[in-house]
Amino acid sequence: MSPDVSSTSPQGTPSATSGPPPTYTFPYNKLKLLQIEPNKAPIVLVSCGSFSPITFLHLRMFEMALDYIRFNTDFEVCAGYLSPVSDAYKKVGLAPGHHRVVMCSRSIEPSSWLMVDPFETVNRNEKGEPEYVPTAKVLRHFDYEINTVLGGIEGTDGIKRKAKIALLAGADLIMSMGEPGLWSPIDLDVILRSFGAFIIERSGTDIDEALSTLRQYKDNIWVINQVIQNDISSTKVRLFLKKDLSIRYLIPDPAIEVCYLLKAFLSKETLTRRAYSISNNTAYSRKDQRTRLKTRKGYSRKTHQTHQTLRPVRL
Amino acid sequence: MSPDVSSTSPQGTPSATSGPPPTYTFPYNKLKLLQIEPNKAPIVLVSCGSFSPITFLHLRMFEMALDYIRFNTDFEVCAGYLSPVSDAYKKVGLAPGHHRVVMCSRSIEPSSWLMVDPFETVNRNEKGEPEYVPTAKVLRHFDYEINTVLGGIEGTDGIKRKAKIALLAGADLIMSMGEPGLWSPIDLDVILRSFGAFIIERSGTDIDEALSTLRQYKDNIWVINQVIQNDISSTKVRLFLKKDLSIRYLIPDPAIEVCYLLKAFLSKETLTRRAYSISNNTAYSRKDQRTRLKTRKGYSRKTHQTHQTLRPVRL
Repeated sequence: MSPDVSSTSPQGTPSATSGPPPTYTFPYNKLKLLQIEPNKAPIVLVSCGSFSPITFLHLRMFEMALDYIRFNTDFEVCAGYLSPVSDAYKKVGLAPGHHRVVMCSRSIEPSSWLMVDPFETVNRNEKGEPEYVPTAKVLRHFDYEINTVLGGIEGTDGIKRKAKIALLAGADLIMSMGEPGLWSPIDLDVILRSFGAFIIERSGTDIDEALSTLRQYKDNIWVINQVIQNDISSTKVRLFLKKDLSIRYLIPDPAIEVCYLLKAFLSKETLTRRAYSISNNTAYSRKDQRTRLKTRKGYSRKTHQTHQTLRPVRL
Repeated sequence: MSPDVSSTSPQGTPSATSGPPPTYTFPYNKLKLLQIEPNKAPIVLVSCGSFSPITFLHLRMFEMALDYIRFNTDFEVCAGYLSPVSDAYKKVGLAPGHHRVVMCSRSIEPSSWLMVDPFETVNRNEKGEPEYVPTAKVLRHFDYEINTVLGGIEGTDGIKRKAKIALLAGADLIMSMGEPGLWSPIDLDVILRSFGAFIIERSGTDIDEALSTLRQYKDNIWVINQVIQNDISSTKVRLFLKKDLSIRYLIPDPAIEVCYLLKAFLSKETLTRRAYSISNNTAYSRKDQRTRLKTRKGYSRKTHQTHQTLRPVRL
């Protein structure tokens, strides 16, 4: 569906064989191709994460953003996408990509506006191995599929316009972005200038310092307060699975079924944490980055909502 | 099914016409009538509440208790029951009882051990009006249905034993019970001595003072720590409905459908708060009791998990 995007490396260098397989198709069955509201700009929300497993909080974030956008902005939400990370990410407790896609897909079935894009999980390098897709490239992929291939969204005036593509993430993302050296400045600029981010804040989290570092992008970052607190995380679900504790009503029922099938993967505690190579660059895994960030800043919260661009980390 | 219990007033005085209608049957389709584990005593958990609407936290409490009991006690859980309060309770935002029963029933369908008992909602006084059932009487009803009508639970040794009936509730319950004058001492004694209570604690809630007041019942009160915090409450859901905010992923999907049908009821903000008469006693509503308790003690948490015995309040 998108050979020129999918076969483009993060640096924009074409690559003949890498990318998603020919069987990959971009899902848009729930994408609102015709706007309902006049004088509103179309927007599509994308959440990048492990979803290992998906929790009610992952899904709740989309609903919070939907409400926020409806009441506080001039955007009309046309769709929300979950984009599960590649198996190349090699995070502890990461279930195989196709199972994570199934879990997410079955969990969002009742939703009228949420979809799962398997793009990251099916992406392969030239050797046919799973290849990590940096966040900036994921957003470019959505931009290409929706605004180039599909031609954008038709307004109430009959004119087609490009949908804004925005990242939806937890507060940790913006905190990591405000930390010098953790993100590639080029990718950060792509994500926050060309696209934009909706951040779900949590009480007790101080993101002001991070926002002050990123003030050049302030008009493209929206912070949403989490009115109803919920401390569920994929990590806690994996811990509960390992301890043989109930996970019911913490995550959607279809995800529970998959979790029990995948218990061995999901409750895996130890996996070699190692730097690994992506796109000919040596990079640290997100886990390493997070550990380093914590050590340096003494901050201990995490949301697992997003993955950072893997670049050599200057620490 | 249980005419002698159902036609018994809270004081134990027989009444010819009050009670549930003849069509009422006690649900026990998921009750484990044969124990699986040897050397464990059978137990049944009962949660009394408004469930207007039911939330994931109501359901999660049962799972927390199930885990706790399995790992920390010599009981084997044979069933969990939700017992929605009578319409006579007249709480603000209380949807009609039959709708609350439908909401709860559809929400617990996938569960292998949870059931909904409509007993409280169908209970009528001599005039055929909804009649409030005090918590002590609700527990007696379960005791009668399970241990007298059904004859108890058969152990792995083939011997039938009486199941322990225990109340499952949030921390507010125990705090209100520790407050002098809020509960009838007789009912308190029935609930905590003859039956027992499993209390879901929340971080930031100090229930030690309440427990010290109730130390004579300490062997019959189990406090369960809520490892994964979740601030959802029926009150917040009703507020979200009123403000036209999304409630998806806060409450089960079947409950959402009913909520939208009942939006007028559930988002009702004002209803005359008044003392009303029950069983020939003048009593304050739970709302009034809570307001008074807050004013006196400066405590502001609430969980809506249980209803108190409505007796004249000495304040």
